[in-house]
Amino acid sequence: GSDADNDLYINQAVVFIEDAIQYRSINHRVDSKSLWLYRRYYSRTCQWILSLTITIILALAFIEEPSSLTVTSDVRYRPPAWNPPCGLTESVELLCFLVFVADVSVKSYLIGWKEFWKNKWLMAYILTLIVSLTDWIVSLSFFCTESLRIRRILRPFFLLQNSSMMKKTLKSINSTLPEMASVVLLLAVHLSLFTMFAMLLFARTKDNQQDKEWMVYFRNLPDSLTSLLVLLTTANNPDVMIPAYSKNRAYSIFFILFTVLGNLFLMNLLTAIIYNQFRGYLLKSVQSSLFRRRLGIRAAFEVLSSLKEIPANAQQPYVSAGALQQVLQKVEMDSRCKQAIMRSLKMCSCDQLSAAQFQKLFEELDKDAIKQHPPSPEYQSHFMQKLQFVFGHPYFGYLGNVVALANIISICVVLVMDADKQPSERDDFFLGTINCFFILYYLLEMLLKILAMGLRRYLSYPSNRFDGLLTVILLILEIATFAVYGFPHPGWRPEFMGLLSLWDMVRLVNMLIVFRFLRIIPNMKFMALVVTTLLDLVKNLRAFAGILVVVFYAFAITGIMLFKGAVVPLGNTSVGPTSSWNIGPTTLMTLLITFQGKMCFHGALLHLLSVNLICRWAKIYFVAWWLISSVIWVNLFVALLLENFIHKWDRRCHRASLSDIEYQRTVELMFRDVLEEPTEEELMEKLHQHPHLQLCR
Amino acid sequence: GSDADNDLYINQAVVFIEDAIQYRSINHRVDSKSLWLYRRYYSRTCQWILSLTITIILALAFIEEPSSLTVTSDVRYRPPAWNPPCGLTESVELLCFLVFVADVSVKSYLIGWKEFWKNKWLMAYILTLIVSLTDWIVSLSFFCTESLRIRRILRPFFLLQNSSMMKKTLKSINSTLPEMASVVLLLAVHLSLFTMFAMLLFARTKDNQQDKEWMVYFRNLPDSLTSLLVLLTTANNPDVMIPAYSKNRAYSIFFILFTVLGNLFLMNLLTAIIYNQFRGYLLKSVQSSLFRRRLGIRAAFEVLSSLKEIPANAQQPYVSAGALQQVLQKVEMDSRCKQAIMRSLKMCSCDQLSAAQFQKLFEELDKDAIKQHPPSPEYQSHFMQKLQFVFGHPYFGYLGNVVALANIISICVVLVMDADKQPSERDDFFLGTINCFFILYYLLEMLLKILAMGLRRYLSYPSNRFDGLLTVILLILEIATFAVYGFPHPGWRPEFMGLLSLWDMVRLVNMLIVFRFLRIIPNMKFMALVVTTLLDLVKNLRAFAGILVVVFYAFAITGIMLFKGAVVPLGNTSVGPTSSWNIGPTTLMTLLITFQGKMCFHGALLHLLSVNLICRWAKIYFVAWWLISSVIWVNLFVALLLENFIHKWDRRCHRASLSDIEYQRTVELMFRDVLEEPTEEELMEKLHQHPHLQLCR
Repeated sequence: GSDADNDLYINQAVVFIEDAIQYRSINHRVDSKSLWLYRRYYSRTCQWILSLTITIILALAFIEEPSSLTVTSDVRYRPPAWNPPCGLTESVELLCFLVFVADVSVKSYLIGWKEFWKNKWLMAYILTLIVSLTDWIVSLSFFCTESLRIRRILRPFFLLQNSSMMKKTLKSINSTLPEMASVVLLLAVHLSLFTMFAMLLFARTKDNQQDKEWMVYFRNLPDSLTSLLVLLTTANNPDVMIPAYSKNRAYSIFFILFTVLGNLFLMNLLTAIIYNQFRGYLLKSVQSSLFRRRLGIRAAFEVLSSLKEIPANAQQPYVSAGALQQVLQKVEMDSRCKQAIMRSLKMCSCDQLSAAQFQKLFEELDKDAIKQHPPSPEYQSHFMQKLQFVFGHPYFGYLGNVVALANIISICVVLVMDADKQPSERDDFFLGTINCFFILYYLLEMLLKILAMGLRRYLSYPSNRFDGLLTVILLILEIATFAVYGFPHPGWRPEFMGLLSLWDMVRLVNMLIVFRFLRIIPNMKFMALVVTTLLDLVKNLRAFAGILVVVFYAFAITGIMLFKGAVVPLGNTSVGPTSSWNIGPTTLMTLLITFQGKMCFHGALLHLLSVNLICRWAKIYFVAWWLISSVIWVNLFVALLLENFIHKWDRRCHRASLSDIEYQRTVELMFRDVLEEPTEEELMEKLHQHPHLQLCR
Repeated sequence: GSDADNDLYINQAVVFIEDAIQYRSINHRVDSKSLWLYRRYYSRTCQWILSLTITIILALAFIEEPSSLTVTSDVRYRPPAWNPPCGLTESVELLCFLVFVADVSVKSYLIGWKEFWKNKWLMAYILTLIVSLTDWIVSLSFFCTESLRIRRILRPFFLLQNSSMMKKTLKSINSTLPEMASVVLLLAVHLSLFTMFAMLLFARTKDNQQDKEWMVYFRNLPDSLTSLLVLLTTANNPDVMIPAYSKNRAYSIFFILFTVLGNLFLMNLLTAIIYNQFRGYLLKSVQSSLFRRRLGIRAAFEVLSSLKEIPANAQQPYVSAGALQQVLQKVEMDSRCKQAIMRSLKMCSCDQLSAAQFQKLFEELDKDAIKQHPPSPEYQSHFMQKLQFVFGHPYFGYLGNVVALANIISICVVLVMDADKQPSERDDFFLGTINCFFILYYLLEMLLKILAMGLRRYLSYPSNRFDGLLTVILLILEIATFAVYGFPHPGWRPEFMGLLSLWDMVRLVNMLIVFRFLRIIPNMKFMALVVTTLLDLVKNLRAFAGILVVVFYAFAITGIMLFKGAVVPLGNTSVGPTSSWNIGPTTLMTLLITFQGKMCFHGALLHLLSVNLICRWAKIYFVAWWLISSVIWVNLFVALLLENFIHKWDRRCHRASLSDIEYQRTVELMFRDVLEEPTEEELMEKLHQHPHLQLCR
């Protein structure tokens, strides 16, 4: 019937507008039942359950058999980790798999059979599930004694496929790969030619005293390759050249040439290439988001314009304001936006909306939420007004900064004085007293500011919230200290009592004070710019970080499986600072942390084990990790940072006058000036290609 | 008289055109005598003498007293360096100073008194000379026994002031300093806050077993600062966190936070800032060069237009073709350009040249020299034509590459097989034989190519010159080997004979073969692009490299003076691989090479000497060097590389069709499409501001 049709159209419009808000594709089934399922599927609860499942299945690695979740990383002192009985983690896994099966079925159903075949991600999802379930069955049939578990390496895929941003980024990285591969090839050629040169240059001589270089670094082809590869990461520089250099200074020319060509030219060329390929990435991604939004709104307009209440012979399609209101009631969206749209709909006071008017109404979605701080209280008394003026003045804030600085300096002085003292010689009286006074000042500052600004206005500034929270915590800690240990007096050196010793309490207070000092950041213009850039970057970086997590997880699991039991306690040798085998500046640290005890990269151990097969694997494994994380990922990060920063810096002048208003910046807003609005033709062409929606016209 | 005036005008025009060609400023005296002096001063001989003087005064450091110009760097085995007698280096120095005094007087005279006061570089030059001469007198009056020689640190200034490109770059770097300083300040804040945190976190505890972290890395404020600063350079990562990490894995959070914030964010932010500030640098510098060129030409036009032979009442100023020809005869310039200008002047066949026509004539200067290869010889015989077709075909070149690759692989195989053999067990027969055959093939290839292309065409390709030269050297080496050691036969292992042993000869041949393999580069498209980018970069980088040399020289001299005799032979401890004190990836290596024996950064020595005052200085010295070279210079380099590469990459598509023609690329040509021509008004305004030239109109 017509009413049912109308209901369907309304529902379609609701879903399309929700798609537009969330930047989702509108290419899904649009019949009543599918729409109901679609809204359920994208409801907060369902998505939350899905995210929880992904988290759980990823977290399983921490308690599964070769895990290293212990306090100490020292293999000698570490108690044996808890091994869950066979079937426990497996049943949790099965539950997760069932959720994923449901997820993939709903998703496949919703996009329809024809679209399914085009969607490689969905097919890979199904394949991953099949492999995982098969592996799970094999695992159970061996009663969990099998050593190879493929499904554990596949787990991060579930995280990857659930984020459209990550998929988009991966596509983008994929398109950069050919150029990157060229430079990596160039690096490989560079490395191999220099390796051959090195082997010819530092060959074995008859005099055993003279060929230290050959003995340690260039004994054979794999050793030479490793030495130079590690030199490329600058980790064994200058150790690697010292023996040759002591013999003859001219040998250093070889190492300088290698480092300058490899490290200065080729490595930075990689940065240049990645930046060049990535320059348009953010803009393109934001542009496609905008297109999805406009398309969703347009689709809603088109279905609403086919509502039966309107004469079909009208020249131009239009939508009645009543229908739109009906739709808006049903749409789930930010209440501020909804109200703003309702308001402009009323103000427009037109019954019929054209396509352009319809789009214009929804432009509210693209606008910044300009945050307005609540007003200060208005005091009647003249004295109170004066107080308000004094303590609401920026100079009072600056005074607070100066006091915080003084506190930091006093802590620093005490630290320097106490640095070499035995714990039993330390006198906590001085620090205890001054901290007490400083904390009292902080409390007073907070109260006076609240008095001047009113509680709501005070809390509306993030810097005040940060400040106030720390002040309250400091106060509680201080009160607790006095309650347990009494007031400070000379020679105040009580023994351990309660949960924390006095010394620990004082340390904690000091750390919080150091942390509180960060409140100065918004007061320094350049620092504020840098910090907002970094915060923006963190937002844009989530997809990148996600991909790094995916790769890292796969690597960690592979590493755990490869090197299980490779490090056995060997008396004292297995512990102590790892020496120069430090591939890849920051990233190895991360890998290091996860399975510190499970690897043979300890300087001492490396030489012991280098003849073993396992360390060959370790080398390849580390080189792969270094290439992916340190070379590619870090360069991608630099590219993103350059793009963000340059964009922001260019806009700094424009914004200078508006600096008082805090913008809720998003990537979409950052690029608003450069984005192109999609044309009517593009939108309609895309709409006509919709696999499930038959438009009347 | 009028003739004398005319001569003066002609001479002025000649000098202005020479200024335009060399991109020099035209703001110098323009009377007859000054012009004569000016042309003498900028003549090749004078400039060559000046460069030689600068080289000599800089090179003095290698033979002056605390020098380290010995073959070995090992303080134990090193023979005492040769000490020149007092007065030898000093008299060379005096000669150099006299040349500089002459230089500065001529320069000051030529730009005139009024301009002199505006020129800070000239004043600094004079000041440097005064200080140096005073120091020289002090030195002689002490009979060379004084320890502090300021003039040695000032020496690189002479290099700096002689290069306009370097001065320009320095100005550019100077304008970037405020932003860089902000980030460095941010880094300092980051470092100091984390140091305080670390000192609170890793404080001394009662249990001596537990505070390894405190003992080694965070004993007091300077130690903590150093540990974290070195962590920022990733040199002591992960060593620094191992003790704390073994105690409790949670401590790693501190180190990860520090590294991610400092190394990933702040350090890369520095790259972004420097790139952002430097983006326009190349373009701006090329633009100002273009302005100087146009200005010189215009000035020549203006003085020529005031020649008496032309009626003064003419509406538009113009220049007679005869006068221009007269000027061109006298101008020293590239003969190809001169001929081209003469030719267009004749083709134009107009007696009077307007300003626009005059400028147009000299546009020849801006054009690429398109290199045309001489034609191949034309053979009469049908057989020879066929031969020419076969061996002139690119496929013959590819075959040569394949053969070179096969040679490389065979050397590699032999190297792998011989890697662990004693020198006495090695059999050089196999390698000797195959190398002999390969070299014969190379010779044949060269001869056939010469046959097909003709000698002149063959030599006009740089890749052929490279190839041919190496082939000839290889041939000579091979013949020498056979002459000394006879033909190879199984068990061919002769003893040492003549200048080099057989084994050294074979090694040298192999190295040359590996080097010859680089001929494949132009055949691979991407590699060729990368290599030409790098070569372009090297051209643009000369100014940067010069500044690095200046800074490095000053640092090296300071270091030699500060740490003279700091490293004394201590049995075995002073030698052996330096351990983790590896500040700054590539640059320390450079510093290291220069005065390896004079520093206390050896891992073992660092701990021995860390209580001494000298190592405090060493720390500050190294941190300064690290900041300047590794942080600032490397980032400038990356900025330049990004700019060069992105520009080149964008133009790749345009040039693809023209790839057969080899361009003599210069920075000026690279930016030609984007450069703005200066307007007539700008030129005339600048000309009227000329301090010495009075224009009639």
